[in-house]
Amino acid sequence: MSSSDIFIGETIGTAILILLGGGVCAAVTLKASKARNAGWLAIAFGWGFAVLTAVYTSAPLSGAHLNPAVTVALAIKDNDWSNVPTYFAGQFLGAMIGAALVWVAYYGQFHAHLTDKEIVGGPGAQATAAKAVEAQEKGAGPVLGIFSTGPEIRHAVQNLLTEIIGTIVLVLAVLTQGLNDSGKGLGTLGALITALVVVSIGLSLGGPTGYAINPARDLGPRIVHALLPLPNKGGSDWGYAWIPVVGPLIGGAIAAGIYNVAFA
Amino acid sequence: MSSSDIFIGETIGTAILILLGGGVCAAVTLKASKARNAGWLAIAFGWGFAVLTAVYTSAPLSGAHLNPAVTVALAIKDNDWSNVPTYFAGQFLGAMIGAALVWVAYYGQFHAHLTDKEIVGGPGAQATAAKAVEAQEKGAGPVLGIFSTGPEIRHAVQNLLTEIIGTIVLVLAVLTQGLNDSGKGLGTLGALITALVVVSIGLSLGGPTGYAINPARDLGPRIVHALLPLPNKGGSDWGYAWIPVVGPLIGGAIAAGIYNVAFA
Amino acid sequence: MSSSDIFIGETIGTAILILLGGGVCAAVTLKASKARNAGWLAIAFGWGFAVLTAVYTSAPLSGAHLNPAVTVALAIKDNDWSNVPTYFAGQFLGAMIGAALVWVAYYGQFHAHLTDKEIVGGPGAQATAAKAVEAQEKGAGPVLGIFSTGPEIRHAVQNLLTEIIGTIVLVLAVLTQGLNDSGKGLGTLGALITALVVVSIGLSLGGPTGYAINPARDLGPRIVHALLPLPNKGGSDWGYAWIPVVGPLIGGAIAAGIYNVAFA
Amino acid sequence: MSSSDIFIGETIGTAILILLGGGVCAAVTLKASKARNAGWLAIAFGWGFAVLTAVYTSAPLSGAHLNPAVTVALAIKDNDWSNVPTYFAGQFLGAMIGAALVWVAYYGQFHAHLTDKEIVGGPGAQATAAKAVEAQEKGAGPVLGIFSTGPEIRHAVQNLLTEIIGTIVLVLAVLTQGLNDSGKGLGTLGALITALVVVSIGLSLGGPTGYAINPARDLGPRIVHALLPLPNKGGSDWGYAWIPVVGPLIGGAIAAGIYNVAFA
Repeated sequence: MSSSDIFIGETIGTAILILLGGGVCAAVTLKASKARNAGWLAIAFGWGFAVLTAVYTSAPLSGAHLNPAVTVALAIKDNDWSNVPTYFAGQFLGAMIGAALVWVAYYGQFHAHLTDKEIVGGPGAQATAAKAVEAQEKGAGPVLGIFSTGPEIRHAVQNLLTEIIGTIVLVLAVLTQGLNDSGKGLGTLGALITALVVVSIGLSLGGPTGYAINPARDLGPRIVHALLPLPNKGGSDWGYAWIPVVGPLIGGAIAAGIYNVAFA
Repeated sequence: MSSSDIFIGETIGTAILILLGGGVCAAVTLKASKARNAGWLAIAFGWGFAVLTAVYTSAPLSGAHLNPAVTVALAIKDNDWSNVPTYFAGQFLGAMIGAALVWVAYYGQFHAHLTDKEIVGGPGAQATAAKAVEAQEKGAGPVLGIFSTGPEIRHAVQNLLTEIIGTIVLVLAVLTQGLNDSGKGLGTLGALITALVVVSIGLSLGGPTGYAINPARDLGPRIVHALLPLPNKGGSDWGYAWIPVVGPLIGGAIAAGIYNVAFA
Repeated sequence: MSSSDIFIGETIGTAILILLGGGVCAAVTLKASKARNAGWLAIAFGWGFAVLTAVYTSAPLSGAHLNPAVTVALAIKDNDWSNVPTYFAGQFLGAMIGAALVWVAYYGQFHAHLTDKEIVGGPGAQATAAKAVEAQEKGAGPVLGIFSTGPEIRHAVQNLLTEIIGTIVLVLAVLTQGLNDSGKGLGTLGALITALVVVSIGLSLGGPTGYAINPARDLGPRIVHALLPLPNKGGSDWGYAWIPVVGPLIGGAIAAGIYNVAFA
Repeated sequence: MSSSDIFIGETIGTAILILLGGGVCAAVTLKASKARNAGWLAIAFGWGFAVLTAVYTSAPLSGAHLNPAVTVALAIKDNDWSNVPTYFAGQFLGAMIGAALVWVAYYGQFHAHLTDKEIVGGPGAQATAAKAVEAQEKGAGPVLGIFSTGPEIRHAVQNLLTEIIGTIVLVLAVLTQGLNDSGKGLGTLGALITALVVVSIGLSLGGPTGYAINPARDLGPRIVHALLPLPNKGGSDWGYAWIPVVGPLIGGAIAAGIYNVAFA
């Protein structure tokens, strides 16, 4: 793979990943969305099939890492760090493009939601308003949740451990793909398996922190949230932002270590 | 493929697509349906597996485009427009047959729903009646939604962009199929991936406009809605009808352009 | 395939199909089931994956028809009726065994449900009781629904047409499998596709009649319902019983005709 | 496969299985989880995709039994018991590690849930408290359900039969895999089918007992529940513990017998 194929593939793939992943959060959260309140199963399948679509589309160009934790794990496994910066650059650029596209696709819904007095506060909805203000002060309101993850219980050690554990599960499954599959067409099956592994992690380990398990997936859209001209959007919760970056990178490295000891 | 195989394949395939896709909307919407109020996840899976069934059945005859946006994108990619009219003819005819079959399969449910005073209005249900009248005047009542898509927020630019973005995602995944799969049997896997991509688009990008992402899927059934002798059916919302035709065609063309620049 | 392999394969496969298919109806319906009220999506996936499990397990022995409509369609397509009686015998025996196993697996739940005064009537629950009595007189109470299908609106022509349409979709997908797949292992993928086609039919065409689309699936368990010593079980609705037998057989024959004209 | 590969593979695989399987129960049950009350469909898919992830990851090392009932069935089928103790050891160790990891990932949620007076009792919530005390005395509170299974209706014969029936379905599908699949890459498809069979068993046969269908899956985490320093955790319901051990072992042996008579 050439550097430009890697960069373009990761940019397109991660943009699709975040467009569809952030999209399902917008669909379930925002006012005037047909999918509002579709529930956690919709979110878990939505993110999983976002991975499927993104991996399937970008795999012919870049191999579809779409996640710095995967890139780091493969670099450790193969002891080859030469393409890591190119992968990272495409992943973060793609994540930011994807988050901006969610905003475009749900433009009217963002506006209707964030200017609704019942939702963000106003004289006719005191209780809800108080709750919304509290959410905004904490920087953890539901609209931020369309861009980035946040914990239900703020506890740095647990939050970090949950992200590490989830990422180990993801990366181990990605690394063992080479032992299970072979041939060109069967790589497609690998994309499907990876997608369902992500559904699994969402259903099983998403409860406490919202399963970032991918630094680009969390940090890129958080930057976009800070930049976008959304009314009443609240803070971007920068105090939490290091956990979904550091946790997945540690998890990826641990998974690579387990792989090199037990599977290689 | 012969012209007659293409025409027959697209007609059968698109009829199955709209029978099952319109069917899940009827199942979730209409009175006296066992699946009533089954939720957005049911709609997203219903449409996705409709694609699976339709593509799988018609692929041996016509390659299963079933969507003018796919046909246009493949024509641009291969620079071959010779079969485009045949594909289009089969797609629109099939879509109309499929919509009529939904009406047959749910005949009693349509009648029960549209003659229920609680649903379409009457002296004993003022509030609901007012709402139903309003929906009918706007031509955007839920029964039209069994046939065609409609926006939650009427905003032509956003609605068009949302349809364009969704179609780009779909068509890029269809175009890269040739790079991922090979061999006869593995084409089956491509049908499965395409289906899950459609589930993904439904979950993630369906909130604002109901994801037509296919001109035949929207326009064909809208014509059938206008023709069918349904009581109290309301208007067919022709003011919106151009968006789910033009948007997907633009999206398909853009996807073909991206493919030719980045993947070819 | 030998006659004994066909008979044993169809018996085991159809028993698994009805055990799991009837099982999900019991799980969603009965008192003291952890899955009670899990909704229509659970039923559609439950029946679909029942097909997957049953087809996958019995395919090596009998090719996994598990449905007289499929057997008839294949006999028409290949113009070979020699094994049809063996297939039918295994299918009906298996369906009855499967229905009896549902009763075993949910023994306590059936008893708790059918002796609960809130559910089947009693002085403390007049309204519910009246409804239950009415359901029993019509022979269409929810417990019969664990065994056999029934219409939401009783209209013989529509009910028959809905079953015919659903079966055509199923059987066309089964018949085109030979055009899509090849090789031993890829037959597994065919089982998966068939299963998801059944999920699709359930979501999209199950609303009016509960999608029997299989004479053995409906008639076998109906006989078991009539024989089992269940308290307060109500009638077995024999007046409707011919529709889910005749409809699917007509549908299978039409699908075989379409296949021979358009695909062969 | 070497003994150490078998032991390591089963330990890693069963740890992932229980981490994700117990994880979805924690996600759906505990206070301050984003997935709380996501419903039975989430549990069924969560356990199914837990199987997928675990089988896919550990298959290259140990063949991914991850279940003593599968190990016993394969030993009967092949008449080779030499590796059975190694498989058992890895499975039980892995199950205990997985259960402990659920506790780590949901640490704050366990604490918040079990110290919430509304949930576990207190002066302000008499009715709920009484119910919680009753649940704890019976040793069948919902928190135990994150670790081990329990019956809705306590009836040893039925509970045992339900577990036997469910395990027969699972193990027959596993045993026939060798007749359906071939080749290295296609084993991946076998992992997917097995996962969806487990979803099916969960949806269809999980209602009465919660479908242990795996002695290690139930007994290992039950021991961990007894050992963990959880406040107000209630008893570990040792009176029921033999059923999800003995039932699956009997089911696996019966399935092997059916296989040897009908399929071999």
